[in-house]
Amino acid sequence: MSPAETVAETLKSRRNILLLNHEAPDGDCLGSTLALAKALWARGQRATVGSSDGVPEMYRFLPSIDRVVTAIPEGETFDTVVFMECSVPERAGRLAAHAAGVPLRVNIDHHVSNTGYGDLVLWDVDAAAVAEVVYPIVRILHPRPDADTATCLLTALMTDTGSFHYTSVTPRSFQLAAELMGAGASPAGVFRQVYENRSAASVRLLGRALSGLTLSDDGRVAWTSVTQAMLRETGAAMEEEGIHVSLRGMGGVRAHVIAEAMGGGGHAAAAGFTAKAPLDEVIRRTLTVVRRELGAAAP
Amino acid sequence: MSPAETVAETLKSRRNILLLNHEAPDGDCLGSTLALAKALWARGQRATVGSSDGVPEMYRFLPSIDRVVTAIPEGETFDTVVFMECSVPERAGRLAAHAAGVPLRVNIDHHVSNTGYGDLVLWDVDAAAVAEVVYPIVRILHPRPDADTATCLLTALMTDTGSFHYTSVTPRSFQLAAELMGAGASPAGVFRQVYENRSAASVRLLGRALSGLTLSDDGRVAWTSVTQAMLRETGAAMEEEGIHVSLRGMGGVRAHVIAEAMGGGGHAAAAGFTAKAPLDEVIRRTLTVVRRELGAAAP
Repeated sequence: MSPAETVAETLKSRRNILLLNHEAPDGDCLGSTLALAKALWARGQRATVGSSDGVPEMYRFLPSIDRVVTAIPEGETFDTVVFMECSVPERAGRLAAHAAGVPLRVNIDHHVSNTGYGDLVLWDVDAAAVAEVVYPIVRILHPRPDADTATCLLTALMTDTGSFHYTSVTPRSFQLAAELMGAGASPAGVFRQVYENRSAASVRLLGRALSGLTLSDDGRVAWTSVTQAMLRETGAAMEEEGIHVSLRGMGGVRAHVIAEAMGGGGHAAAAGFTAKAPLDEVIRRTLTVVRRELGAAAP
Repeated sequence: MSPAETVAETLKSRRNILLLNHEAPDGDCLGSTLALAKALWARGQRATVGSSDGVPEMYRFLPSIDRVVTAIPEGETFDTVVFMECSVPERAGRLAAHAAGVPLRVNIDHHVSNTGYGDLVLWDVDAAAVAEVVYPIVRILHPRPDADTATCLLTALMTDTGSFHYTSVTPRSFQLAAELMGAGASPAGVFRQVYENRSAASVRLLGRALSGLTLSDDGRVAWTSVTQAMLRETGAAMEEEGIHVSLRGMGGVRAHVIAEAMGGGGHAAAAGFTAKAPLDEVIRRTLTVVRRELGAAAP
């Protein structure tokens, strides 16, 4: 049996499964836990999708998103926990406590940072999205995924590949997209919901951010910032506290190395961290770490 | 034989082929004419790629782009002309004159506006990009396309689908992308060249444009503008004269109907036109036509 078959066949006989998203869940994690849960529900199995941090506004269009819970009813116990994209169990946040004493822990991920914990580990760093890892399981549990399940997986795939343009994309990513469209998912629909459903205020805010782009003298680093004052002036809202720093790297620069040095994480192409310090100081400290990484990835 | 087979088998025996792009060529047109030319060249056939308006800066990374000509040497004659994405032969611009008297005219397109002229017509309005129409011909002429040919076709496909998110995308689009990746094309590489290779000045200009977003009272129309003053202030350059209006439509609104009323053309999702009048007047007149189309596509 392939590892995916082992996980799928094992899940078939479990009585109550908890599927956990990581903190600050993204589209790949939410779409993949939901798709897996829907395949289990379609078989009449009991499964709960948990997200300690709830669901960001941009993903509230996902089918069955109302069934994602932020708390577990008192007294409910599970015989299986599936950790989705959690490098360590604690990445699931507050709800990770419900994994204590659970006899079967399944660890599904595609990030290099995963620590390999759990009784069953499905870990494929060549997958552009964890949806590519989850799809074979879904297909075994529910051989003909419905359009809603396909939409969950396509959202996962599109959001984790920037609509198929990250370096992580492989022919498998496109083959999966073709199959999900065949099952009724719409790339245009997903894109509109995730990326084009923004208010005029948020577009103006993006404009303000881009207008303020700063370039380093050697042209290798570009940055900008969004301040509370800009939020007020454009009438935009943001769901964050402190200073959230988002990094994008290319040409051999490892964004996650920079983010990790600042207490965050991510991929080489995209990473981030949160800081609690004055903006100028965060920029200055970040640029110092960026310089160090640029030295390691000399052009 | 399928229509693509007929075109491919016919081209095999032609002695000198002129492949014409439409005026203001886009990535789909340039990538598709180049891919077809490269398949012919690989067979040792003589073929010339012509573009009356040359090649926009963003597409100059395309393999063999240096072989795209804006003029035909005096005295050169062709036995075949391939019109790529030209609704009428005149859409090829100045170079269309070289089609006069040519015994075989091939018309390849995926736009609804094509008038069906020519001796051989390959016209598929279900194709998300003309690359999907051209690929089967390329495969017959040159069964194992090289990485450069695949890059031309992937650029065509990605630029005409907004990196796979337009409503025109079908499973065929993704299957083609998977095959082109298998042949050595890189979606990340194409995306970086086409979309991420912009100067800081042009990013700041985009920021200025987005900051100035205006929304109609009913929230159904949003618009902004880029002026010569903004170009000067941000240090950005633009390759256009007059006022170029770019339209995007969704929810049943037909952008090409608006553009056609103003003397331009395009698709329902994306269309455009050029105007020579003061900016305020162009905005006012355009909004009037937009209102009419919104009435036709009442929500």
